[in-house]
Amino acid sequence: MTISEIVQRSDTIPGRMFDLTVIVLILVSVVTASIETLPNLTPDIRSILSWSEIAIVGLFTIEYGLRVGTAPRKLRYVLSFHGIVDVAAILPFYLTLGGVDLRALRVLQLFRIVRVLKLSRYSVAMARFGKAMALAKEEIVLFACVAIALLYLSAAGIWYFEHEAQPEAFASILHSLWWATATLTTVGYGDVYPVTVGGRLFTFVILMCGLGIVAVPAGLVAAALSRVRQEETQSGS
Amino acid sequence: MTISEIVQRSDTIPGRMFDLTVIVLILVSVVTASIETLPNLTPDIRSILSWSEIAIVGLFTIEYGLRVGTAPRKLRYVLSFHGIVDVAAILPFYLTLGGVDLRALRVLQLFRIVRVLKLSRYSVAMARFGKAMALAKEEIVLFACVAIALLYLSAAGIWYFEHEAQPEAFASILHSLWWATATLTTVGYGDVYPVTVGGRLFTFVILMCGLGIVAVPAGLVAAALSRVRQEETQSGS
Amino acid sequence: MTISEIVQRSDTIPGRMFDLTVIVLILVSVVTASIETLPNLTPDIRSILSWSEIAIVGLFTIEYGLRVGTAPRKLRYVLSFHGIVDVAAILPFYLTLGGVDLRALRVLQLFRIVRVLKLSRYSVAMARFGKAMALAKEEIVLFACVAIALLYLSAAGIWYFEHEAQPEAFASILHSLWWATATLTTVGYGDVYPVTVGGRLFTFVILMCGLGIVAVPAGLVAAALSRVRQEETQSGS
Amino acid sequence: MTISEIVQRSDTIPGRMFDLTVIVLILVSVVTASIETLPNLTPDIRSILSWSEIAIVGLFTIEYGLRVGTAPRKLRYVLSFHGIVDVAAILPFYLTLGGVDLRALRVLQLFRIVRVLKLSRYSVAMARFGKAMALAKEEIVLFACVAIALLYLSAAGIWYFEHEAQPEAFASILHSLWWATATLTTVGYGDVYPVTVGGRLFTFVILMCGLGIVAVPAGLVAAALSRVRQEETQSGS
Repeated sequence: MTISEIVQRSDTIPGRMFDLTVIVLILVSVVTASIETLPNLTPDIRSILSWSEIAIVGLFTIEYGLRVGTAPRKLRYVLSFHGIVDVAAILPFYLTLGGVDLRALRVLQLFRIVRVLKLSRYSVAMARFGKAMALAKEEIVLFACVAIALLYLSAAGIWYFEHEAQPEAFASILHSLWWATATLTTVGYGDVYPVTVGGRLFTFVILMCGLGIVAVPAGLVAAALSRVRQEETQSGS
Repeated sequence: MTISEIVQRSDTIPGRMFDLTVIVLILVSVVTASIETLPNLTPDIRSILSWSEIAIVGLFTIEYGLRVGTAPRKLRYVLSFHGIVDVAAILPFYLTLGGVDLRALRVLQLFRIVRVLKLSRYSVAMARFGKAMALAKEEIVLFACVAIALLYLSAAGIWYFEHEAQPEAFASILHSLWWATATLTTVGYGDVYPVTVGGRLFTFVILMCGLGIVAVPAGLVAAALSRVRQEETQSGS
Repeated sequence: MTISEIVQRSDTIPGRMFDLTVIVLILVSVVTASIETLPNLTPDIRSILSWSEIAIVGLFTIEYGLRVGTAPRKLRYVLSFHGIVDVAAILPFYLTLGGVDLRALRVLQLFRIVRVLKLSRYSVAMARFGKAMALAKEEIVLFACVAIALLYLSAAGIWYFEHEAQPEAFASILHSLWWATATLTTVGYGDVYPVTVGGRLFTFVILMCGLGIVAVPAGLVAAALSRVRQEETQSGS
Repeated sequence: MTISEIVQRSDTIPGRMFDLTVIVLILVSVVTASIETLPNLTPDIRSILSWSEIAIVGLFTIEYGLRVGTAPRKLRYVLSFHGIVDVAAILPFYLTLGGVDLRALRVLQLFRIVRVLKLSRYSVAMARFGKAMALAKEEIVLFACVAIALLYLSAAGIWYFEHEAQPEAFASILHSLWWATATLTTVGYGDVYPVTVGGRLFTFVILMCGLGIVAVPAGLVAAALSRVRQEETQSGS
């Protein structure tokens, strides 16, 4: 049982153990990353969090070293999606060691979450999802374009009807895009909504047309996924 | 017609009668449980409710005794899902007889509702649903993981964009998770929403990606269910 | 071309004309019914509306008479769904002729809208929808039961977590059902929402489980409908 | 390589270049149209925007000339959907040259967005979507009718329950239609919602029935689309 087998393979007990350890470390580091954002933490907790961060980053650095060292084709791994994600998970920490102001630091918190993406490597069903997306690709692209066009049309329409009644909320078509997003996705925060009769009739018409356009892609993916599974079972039997 | 047949079987008239009686009792006890939570009830109503509760619990205790007594393999029933649910439906009452403070009592109100779960035993279509879930299991697990990762990413992103403009609502990534939940499920209470341009653009992007991830699993289950039904009808004919 | 043919059949030109006239009258009467509810109308408009109502009810009475008169089996028609709907469309008017107070009158306005249901008779695709519902009946019933159980559990849970923080909004489990309805349907008015950490975590869990349960039935109906259409086309070819 | 080939055909390199240029111009003009609506712009920016508009309209006029000139059957193109859209994209500008008041100008801003529709010509997947719509046409029409009837019934019902408690929000059935739209589409802005017990029970019932009716059409389109794709792949192989 060489190190290479432990790091690279997932079908052996030690290999699984290694993968599991990495996942646990990722989850721990994500949780600490979010706890760090909590306001008025005691200095003690702050120091614990920072130490745990250093420890985790250290372990991830070792992991990255092992992956590069045991990779059959080193450069290929370094330039692969997972290779880049692995670096993106540890690089921010080292970059912040060189004195950077707090604002920038906060941005880098976001990058730390990229580690979550690494979990995706451990999923097999992902492949089937990829196939389904490839099947329904054209429709999804089309619906995405139509949805964006509809969003723009909604924003322009509501701006025309409402911007005199509510010059603040619907100051321009660009401002109205926020209303269009919240409405066509049916989130409806309620911070902006039409008050004029014209605006409300327009909202009614847009929603009748728009709900489908926003809801159909999800149905397409579901249909494609179940079809891919069906084909697999048929070819399997 | 022995008692065993009445209790254990559902395909005879007395068996159905017995099951129906149990269902009615469950519904009555659930309704009384919720009426009890009403503020400023008259003492008379309170006493009626408590007496009805005692009566129902008594009947459920007898039912449980009969089920244990008539079960072909007693221990197996006691440790089965339904056996535990049956106990969970009567145990809280007896536990509260030993003086417990009101706060704890309120908690136990929740357990009384477990009785509703007992209704599931009487449904046959449940099996088909189970098959469908088994068919789409992998995808549903995958989508669940992706959805949770997305929730976390959304919370982190919106925290970065909004926590300076709204230090209360977006105090930390953990606080922002509430916004992420209300937004990605399209509930959109409107208690927290982005106000900055960056936060709104981020919300737009997240919603465009996220709606599908939240909506697809339902479509998958529906597709799987209709496929299971189709196979049954084909094998049936 | 006898009257019977005009009234009973829809495959002849006069028959279609007759059906179309009835539909137009129904739409006119529905619109007038809603205009009548407008506050501060001028007496002139009021009188016009009431006269138009009398005229329409008169025509519907004649229509009903013709339908009864030309029905091959009179009693069967009178007791059929459409027969009852036809009476329900004219009866309220005659009942209100006997002096009834305004409050009651308002209630009867609702019944006038039943006329809209009569439109359903003129739709053919309805049959296919019926078939689809029959196909997916069991699942829909099951999901309806589970949805209602989930609604109750959500209401009980949120009441336990929130009723101390918000004694007004979550006064009892019955009060909390309003929150459960608005949340699980993702309407999210924002008039009531959890504020405690426990309540928000509970909302998150409930939404993750509940969205599917509410969304699946629609997918089932859609899948069943497209399957029914498929079978028809296959049997057709 | 004649001009005709460049304008009319999309399968040659110059033809693609021409189409791409038009798309870019459309997007630019749409963006400028929305920027123009921004309040308090500096005169310099205003002049830049107006000049860019003149330039774009000029190019679109040339494009239209070329399309008419190179069309095999000129009149047919002029009266075709795309011909009308092309005119609708440039006409508003020339109409506004003749002194029209600002209010009217704002309206015409909307027509400028029609240019976005021209993008649809460049999409191929559109055809498949058209087929799917044709397949599910009857159901979609039926569901649209039922949805509108349900909207009206909801508005009438909620008006009856709420108009005394909230005479402002639910002044009439026509006013209540706004609530019905926001609720049945699950947008739920939260500007109007029932407060009476009757109104809330009614909302619950309506939502249980209504969600499916609003959600099913999207599922139908998705199912039809995936079926059309399936048939194409089968006929293709």
